[in-house]
Amino acid sequence: MSVQLEAAPMSVPHPYWLRDNCPCTVCRNPRSGQKRYRIDELPDALTATEAVEDAAGLSVLWSDGHRSFYPTGWDAPDQDGDHRTERGKRLWEAADFARGLPEADWSGYLADPEERIAVLAAVRRSGFAVLRGVPVEERRVLAVARTFGYVRDTNYGELFDVRVEPDAVNLAFTDAAIAPHTDNPYRDPVPTLQLLHCLRNDAAGGDSGLVDGFRAAALLREEDPEAFALLARTPVPFRYRDRTADLSAELPMIGLDPRGAIREIRFNNRSLDTLRGLGGTELDAFYTAYRRFAAITLRPELRLEFRLGPGDCLIFDNTRLLHARTAFEQTTGGRHLQGCYADLDSLSSTLAVLRRNTAALDELEALFAGEGAGEYLGEAVTMAEHMLQAGALARAAGAPPALVAAALLHDIGHFHGSGLELMAGTDNRHGETAAARLSRYFPAAVTEPVRLHVPAKRYLCTAEPDYVAKLSPASVHTLSLQGGPMTPEEAETFAAGPFAADAVAVRRWDEAAKDPAAGTPTFAEFRPLLLELMS
Amino acid sequence: MSVQLEAAPMSVPHPYWLRDNCPCTVCRNPRSGQKRYRIDELPDALTATEAVEDAAGLSVLWSDGHRSFYPTGWDAPDQDGDHRTERGKRLWEAADFARGLPEADWSGYLADPEERIAVLAAVRRSGFAVLRGVPVEERRVLAVARTFGYVRDTNYGELFDVRVEPDAVNLAFTDAAIAPHTDNPYRDPVPTLQLLHCLRNDAAGGDSGLVDGFRAAALLREEDPEAFALLARTPVPFRYRDRTADLSAELPMIGLDPRGAIREIRFNNRSLDTLRGLGGTELDAFYTAYRRFAAITLRPELRLEFRLGPGDCLIFDNTRLLHARTAFEQTTGGRHLQGCYADLDSLSSTLAVLRRNTAALDELEALFAGEGAGEYLGEAVTMAEHMLQAGALARAAGAPPALVAAALLHDIGHFHGSGLELMAGTDNRHGETAAARLSRYFPAAVTEPVRLHVPAKRYLCTAEPDYVAKLSPASVHTLSLQGGPMTPEEAETFAAGPFAADAVAVRRWDEAAKDPAAGTPTFAEFRPLLLELMS
Repeated sequence: MSVQLEAAPMSVPHPYWLRDNCPCTVCRNPRSGQKRYRIDELPDALTATEAVEDAAGLSVLWSDGHRSFYPTGWDAPDQDGDHRTERGKRLWEAADFARGLPEADWSGYLADPEERIAVLAAVRRSGFAVLRGVPVEERRVLAVARTFGYVRDTNYGELFDVRVEPDAVNLAFTDAAIAPHTDNPYRDPVPTLQLLHCLRNDAAGGDSGLVDGFRAAALLREEDPEAFALLARTPVPFRYRDRTADLSAELPMIGLDPRGAIREIRFNNRSLDTLRGLGGTELDAFYTAYRRFAAITLRPELRLEFRLGPGDCLIFDNTRLLHARTAFEQTTGGRHLQGCYADLDSLSSTLAVLRRNTAALDELEALFAGEGAGEYLGEAVTMAEHMLQAGALARAAGAPPALVAAALLHDIGHFHGSGLELMAGTDNRHGETAAARLSRYFPAAVTEPVRLHVPAKRYLCTAEPDYVAKLSPASVHTLSLQGGPMTPEEAETFAAGPFAADAVAVRRWDEAAKDPAAGTPTFAEFRPLLLELMS
Repeated sequence: MSVQLEAAPMSVPHPYWLRDNCPCTVCRNPRSGQKRYRIDELPDALTATEAVEDAAGLSVLWSDGHRSFYPTGWDAPDQDGDHRTERGKRLWEAADFARGLPEADWSGYLADPEERIAVLAAVRRSGFAVLRGVPVEERRVLAVARTFGYVRDTNYGELFDVRVEPDAVNLAFTDAAIAPHTDNPYRDPVPTLQLLHCLRNDAAGGDSGLVDGFRAAALLREEDPEAFALLARTPVPFRYRDRTADLSAELPMIGLDPRGAIREIRFNNRSLDTLRGLGGTELDAFYTAYRRFAAITLRPELRLEFRLGPGDCLIFDNTRLLHARTAFEQTTGGRHLQGCYADLDSLSSTLAVLRRNTAALDELEALFAGEGAGEYLGEAVTMAEHMLQAGALARAAGAPPALVAAALLHDIGHFHGSGLELMAGTDNRHGETAAARLSRYFPAAVTEPVRLHVPAKRYLCTAEPDYVAKLSPASVHTLSLQGGPMTPEEAETFAAGPFAADAVAVRRWDEAAKDPAAGTPTFAEFRPLLLELMS
């Protein structure tokens, strides 16, 4: 950001905008980023009376006396900004997946957060992904949805069975072919994600098809801009009725954001209700445009065809992709999918948290490799070796993951690198303790034993008379700096606390983790465990 | 609809539109209204080769040989059409509720579908309603939501507790005042409904406030059209972060439908993230507009203030109303609300079904009063008296509601009035049986005993040798028309069917319900029971 420094009053560009982005803890809750003031509470005619920019950032004194500091790079573009319109997507045709679908194995997806990131990112970018080897069990599709979000309950139930039903009201529950469509256009808010988990598919036919509705709409825009504009500006009524439901929604088939980018496709000729209120030739033009768009969605080169087998679970964006299936023959075997709906916002949140956590672990790993190579208070191991050994001891003892993480990270407070400060975000100038820093990422079961591992030493010196003798010389030295042994009253209070036993356990691994002859695991070995704890 | 009849090819207006509204059962599933063909399957250059309109409706023969019949009035405006934009709403200011809030007692709401209609219609039209006397029990708010829809699960859980929390991340969980805002603007799809159930409110302060965001936006449009247009055309980023969530959405503060009507308000200064990509003076103009809109939302005349007491449950439209609360003093007492989210589409569906069912009952009641006053096969009671007596006998016998309804409606097939045909909708020309007609509204537990009550007579004549002697002369006469007593094999098959016992019970009340001296209840007495069964 460039700043013009002038004579008083100092000028900063867009003062209300700049002030509304003040990152200080008076203005915002540091944990949620939520602002603590109302926009109307900023004074009229707000100006900067002082503005100084240097390598660290921009410091502003405002006309109402508030002071803001904007660290350099605070307004860097958000990589993750627009993730719902065509601008944030990879539009595709079938040939783009000639080398394979975006897919992952269920066990890898569960075990490896990087695999989960890849799958969720594919759903967001390409609109879909397939999980293979999901256990062939009823209701399992709900568990898949819950790995990244929340199931959207509807009149079809928490889940629905896609199989042939006698006297079916819905075409889905027959053996007929279904043309590319989005689900539930008569619902507003429409379910933004759909999952289909294949339990059985022995029938001849019954293959799946996907069409990128954003691509189809973009083609219509290229080939017939008038038709595109008409579909985008005309709200159309969709409707579904049965004995217990009467759902209706009125929205365009091609939904645009206010800047004209494609944002949402609602395409389902089965549930289009009577269009009213279009006069003159507009109604005929609408039907011409609608039929043209329909024809595009049916082009073979747009349709990605594949077959779901038992254990496959397809996850797709119902605001973008049209899904379809070929007809199948009941007589040749059965076909049974279980489906449910969920929403994109939670998927994106899960993805963002996984990425944030991965980035934080990258920083932690770099700290272990960098500052961690330094001397550890005169011991015969480095700081990193000490912490990695502590983690290894906890793991070897069969400690639960949170306690392994606490042992591994217990001395993180000794690091002062910029990486760690970055982890602490806007709070970095306030010198939080290691536990406070970790609390941005880890639950109390990790951070509390870390916080209490120093008092645990003072506690053990009181509770176990021979404990002091086990301490290394360096540890005896720091004991006095830390306040010496606890009084009996202090020890009793400490022991009654919720994480005392865990802190004592960490402490014992801490004392033992100073063996220059012991093998030392790598930080990378702990990453899956840490990532699991973070989410 | 006016039709110009011309020389061949006959001309009808908007042929694709008209054809796409063909109500026949080849084109549509009569129960769901879903179309059975694809729009692209209609031939190119579709024309009408014959078009004849009379009092009954319009008959069209199409160039591809299909024949359509459109009953007069088929294209009457849908009363229920647009129910999400300002066009379908009653915009309000606080004084509009000087005589009281839209409210109902919980027990009345549960017992009386008309009361439920009033409450749900108020939420849709005014944006809110209050239920009084909802039991003060944890999690009860979920049961309230389930009376009209589905709970939307989020990162805050299935429900959330609004009370003071130590070290709260969210302002809601403190004792501070909260300015008018919509919830979860960082979510897309945003929860469209919110419920807040008061369990305790002893604190000084903690009053509730509501502001009609559509009204506030309409005022901005009147007073500063440029500011309105700027807020409507600028997608803004909203964001919320905590340890396990990172939610973001980018949408305008004032959402318009493609025709420019106000459709959705997202207003929450706490979660507005850094606005990027606005150049030149646009960013300053945005903040001026934003502050102007904020100031309007704070005008006292817009803010409806009231106090929720224990047992009150507020239901409101989170796409339209801003909600607020005054600060409260922890020291004077506690304040505890439980909230959850749900969605408008299901509320509207429930309302539509209730209204449809109420209208159907009006028709049934009219039939009882009209044709029902006619002679009943030579018996000493009218048809209506006969059916009402049968219902009364079932009720007196303590039969379950479905069986009372079956007894009451068992002879509905004797009515041929237009009212009943209307009930049967587009299927009316296919002569469905009474049971088939009722199946549009009632579950099998009602329709199956109705369907089987004639076979039940034939069954009883075989199963119980002295049964024939109990029949009235008219009933003996019709027995032969109905096929006479069953063979022993037929009787065995009948008795093994799932609703045989219920049908026999209906049959016995049927036989007994011919007493000119017996008291006869009114149809109105059965309405609540029937409406409950219908939903």
